[in-house]
Amino acid sequence: MIDTHEKHDTKSKPRWEDVVAQKKKLQAEALATKFEPLPSRIAGSITALTSPDEITSKILSGQVTSHEIVRAFIQRYFFMRTIRISCVKTSCSELTSECILSLTEVLFEEALNEAKRLDKYFSEHGKLVGPFHGVPITLKDQFDVKGYDSTIGYVGRSFKPAEEDAVVVKLLKSFGAIVIAKSNLPQSIMWCETNNPLWGLTTNPSDKDYTPGGSTGGEGVLLALGASMLGWGTDIGGSIRIPSHMMGLYGLKPSSSRLPYRGVPVSTDGQEHVPSSIGPMARNLSMIHTITEALISSEPWKFDARCAALPWREDAFQEVQSRPLTIGVLYDDEVVRPHPPVARVLRTVVEALKTAGHDILEWDAKLHAECVAVMDQYYTVDGGKDIRDAVSEGGEPFIPHVERLINSGAPISVHDYWALNRSKWELQQKYMEKWDSLRSQKTGRVADVVILPPLPHTAVPHTACRWVGYTKVWNFLDYPALVLPAGNVTQDDIHEPWEFAFRNPKDEWTGKLWQDQRQKMADLRLPVGVQLVCRKLEEEKLLGIGKVVDEVIRESRAGPN
Amino acid sequence: MIDTHEKHDTKSKPRWEDVVAQKKKLQAEALATKFEPLPSRIAGSITALTSPDEITSKILSGQVTSHEIVRAFIQRYFFMRTIRISCVKTSCSELTSECILSLTEVLFEEALNEAKRLDKYFSEHGKLVGPFHGVPITLKDQFDVKGYDSTIGYVGRSFKPAEEDAVVVKLLKSFGAIVIAKSNLPQSIMWCETNNPLWGLTTNPSDKDYTPGGSTGGEGVLLALGASMLGWGTDIGGSIRIPSHMMGLYGLKPSSSRLPYRGVPVSTDGQEHVPSSIGPMARNLSMIHTITEALISSEPWKFDARCAALPWREDAFQEVQSRPLTIGVLYDDEVVRPHPPVARVLRTVVEALKTAGHDILEWDAKLHAECVAVMDQYYTVDGGKDIRDAVSEGGEPFIPHVERLINSGAPISVHDYWALNRSKWELQQKYMEKWDSLRSQKTGRVADVVILPPLPHTAVPHTACRWVGYTKVWNFLDYPALVLPAGNVTQDDIHEPWEFAFRNPKDEWTGKLWQDQRQKMADLRLPVGVQLVCRKLEEEKLLGIGKVVDEVIRESRAGPN
Repeated sequence: MIDTHEKHDTKSKPRWEDVVAQKKKLQAEALATKFEPLPSRIAGSITALTSPDEITSKILSGQVTSHEIVRAFIQRYFFMRTIRISCVKTSCSELTSECILSLTEVLFEEALNEAKRLDKYFSEHGKLVGPFHGVPITLKDQFDVKGYDSTIGYVGRSFKPAEEDAVVVKLLKSFGAIVIAKSNLPQSIMWCETNNPLWGLTTNPSDKDYTPGGSTGGEGVLLALGASMLGWGTDIGGSIRIPSHMMGLYGLKPSSSRLPYRGVPVSTDGQEHVPSSIGPMARNLSMIHTITEALISSEPWKFDARCAALPWREDAFQEVQSRPLTIGVLYDDEVVRPHPPVARVLRTVVEALKTAGHDILEWDAKLHAECVAVMDQYYTVDGGKDIRDAVSEGGEPFIPHVERLINSGAPISVHDYWALNRSKWELQQKYMEKWDSLRSQKTGRVADVVILPPLPHTAVPHTACRWVGYTKVWNFLDYPALVLPAGNVTQDDIHEPWEFAFRNPKDEWTGKLWQDQRQKMADLRLPVGVQLVCRKLEEEKLLGIGKVVDEVIRESRAGPN
Repeated sequence: MIDTHEKHDTKSKPRWEDVVAQKKKLQAEALATKFEPLPSRIAGSITALTSPDEITSKILSGQVTSHEIVRAFIQRYFFMRTIRISCVKTSCSELTSECILSLTEVLFEEALNEAKRLDKYFSEHGKLVGPFHGVPITLKDQFDVKGYDSTIGYVGRSFKPAEEDAVVVKLLKSFGAIVIAKSNLPQSIMWCETNNPLWGLTTNPSDKDYTPGGSTGGEGVLLALGASMLGWGTDIGGSIRIPSHMMGLYGLKPSSSRLPYRGVPVSTDGQEHVPSSIGPMARNLSMIHTITEALISSEPWKFDARCAALPWREDAFQEVQSRPLTIGVLYDDEVVRPHPPVARVLRTVVEALKTAGHDILEWDAKLHAECVAVMDQYYTVDGGKDIRDAVSEGGEPFIPHVERLINSGAPISVHDYWALNRSKWELQQKYMEKWDSLRSQKTGRVADVVILPPLPHTAVPHTACRWVGYTKVWNFLDYPALVLPAGNVTQDDIHEPWEFAFRNPKDEWTGKLWQDQRQKMADLRLPVGVQLVCRKLEEEKLLGIGKVVDEVIRESRAGPN
């Protein structure tokens, strides 16, 4: 192991390429962890499970052990990798960083041992350690796990293992969840794709030239391939919701103070202007709901002083499932027009909601561009120093997006920073007033929820993602937001008219992207999600409404499509 | 009226002395508002009322009208002023700023009209407009009232009337409360006393050479003299609790997000590092509890986007009143030693609590000095620019404390500011862990509440207040804190031994203050309070415990003392 601490003290840093080589060597060793494979039919039946209840009931009835579950998921990872290397449109022919999909730290051995411990506990006590007993989970390479690095995409954070688990990791483990790996993210995490000089570029399993989104892109890939049951990401502008949308997953960005952030290192740590949230990603909503309720019920504010002391409100979760909802719909944020499949999927969902008896309210884009404009001013308030220092620490090159970001503005004074905060508060206040002012013509009620696209487009070629205004506005407002998978690009979408005057360079870029890529996007049948948003700290309401909307979507997709 | 806007535009500002003269002239006119006086016996019986229920039940039964109530309180003001001018140890012989006690904006005429409107409403509808129907209130000169200045002690904010009421003012008015005046505060509000070049020095009614505390000193004086039923202040380091303690009042500093701050201009507005809170001050606890519950129950988060969406939890308020409490007691913060009367009153209260069956836990001063040290670094992060600009706007001189404050450090970068925030979060986390680690030896329970002195001393001569560590640490942690009156300085206190090695210059200053002033402090029988603290957002629990402790204090004081 390279002792970077000592090297750093003597001012002679290792070459960054050597650090990368050493990290990859250790990763390869961890990937080579030996275990007895399960018959593929059995392994397949295990990885097809998607809810914690399915897992625990099979363990309780003796049909499966935790050790078998972990082996099944590890096998799934290798299986998918093999498929990917041999079949999918990729040029990889060896274990390059690109081809190891999206892992960073590999905890296979520890996970297998933990599974054995859980099995022993169950056989001795006849009961489970918690509601997630034996559930294999993965974590964005930003969540501290004792003994492993949290690189957040920086070479300079290599070989500085965490001294203890993040609060959320401790809680997940106390529920019985087993961490099998950590996953890739972009350098600095401040980007909607997944690339860094340490672990490389994470590609979309559907096409290596496409991104799976970011910054929680590694989790998106693992979950989409069935190599994890529950993923954990962070979101300061869409980083949970964007890969969820692109990869056909469920992803929740809670209000920032609802779940414990402690033990999750982050770029520009210490800033309080636009908070980042941690949140879950999964292949079904039940998993998202169950883990969110379990975490809040474990009173995380007792372990993280920045967490809101707000218990789980089951009544709010239930109440919205028992009545017609008032749903605001925003089709277009008036900055970047959504591509035809994104617009069509949202229209389809809205029609199905109407048919199911819900009341639809036209939402407007008022204040969205203003919120994003103020938010953008924050990115360079430190002149990019935080990110520049972190990259200098390792000595690796910048990825282009990050280089542009940190060079886009000079630092401002604390006095001007406070003025920016006042602008933010004013916009937050105005958005609250906007929410109260838009009312159903039919009932006079204000919206329970707003539905809108997560992005103007589906997965796109690497570096093509340019506008995340549909997600980031909710970080600025600190409202909880949930992405649900709702459809796929179809061949019919290609024939939608797509002629209009571009509003601005980002609209033009995105508009031309559809013109260039539509045939491929349809051929790949890329997933399309919808985004639901409630007001600050209304996580229970959002998840209850999510359940209603998800059922409407599943039913409408079950029919002819 | 001086049009400072226009003058400002043409860069020829009025002389600050002229602005002050004009403000005082208008104030004198407002003070001369004509109304028919009540017989003094009736007026006295009205101003002796201390709870909103006493007021409203008398209105409901027809014994008194709102108009009579307002007249009684205005008369009280003039009565007390007359006493003060003629009897109290003061050299005032005319209406100087010092002698008008502590008023800034005078709303007598508006209050009398509002009272008439309420009386009309009651006679027409046979019911009250709300739970505070006819209750006369006063506001620190920081709460926006439409049509009146909120100077926060700056000349340059004169003649810039607020365009609408602060959210809390709107809510108070909707409950039926009547604003009769606004009150004095120090230049910039960043001080524990009450002085500014616009309205002058507010003195302690017991002795003109003594301060009533600050920054909500004007409210402290009005309430102590019976010229208001409910006062509103702000607290970013003790500004509600210090004058409450010095003037023998009840004062609550809630967690910052519990009550709506919107519409309350403040120094260094836009900073998010140590939040200021608004809170009530009164002559009894019932008033504090009733108004806090009423405000939270009116869902202030629907009117102020920065307010926590946390309903009033009656169960938490009741639960602590039905069982023995675990009470942490901190006698000394190990920076500045409390004066004998402050220490003696706290000991007496603790003994009475023990006798009443409560479990007492020794609290320690761990982390207190560290919290204050980080907090102090924040004061100059903008190099004093915010306050300097606000003073320049009017052109008046700095008061000495403010001048020292803004010249005590150079501005820091936003990057360093974030590092300071990280230090803050670490200390907040450590304090949370400390709270969980200190447990009763008897029951193993953690503290329900901590009791400690509000200050190391009682009211002191002007400019002598130098250490507010006992209050400000709770702003840094954002924990709610309540001051209760608990005793007075006695002649016996003078004879307490007071010989020790001073720990530091502040301890020395404060220690010598007792040596110099003890005879006078005992002669004046200055009030002494205790401070109760719960954890973040536990306002209901704090008020419930406050009720228990207050009853124990009242009972023990009713006996021989």
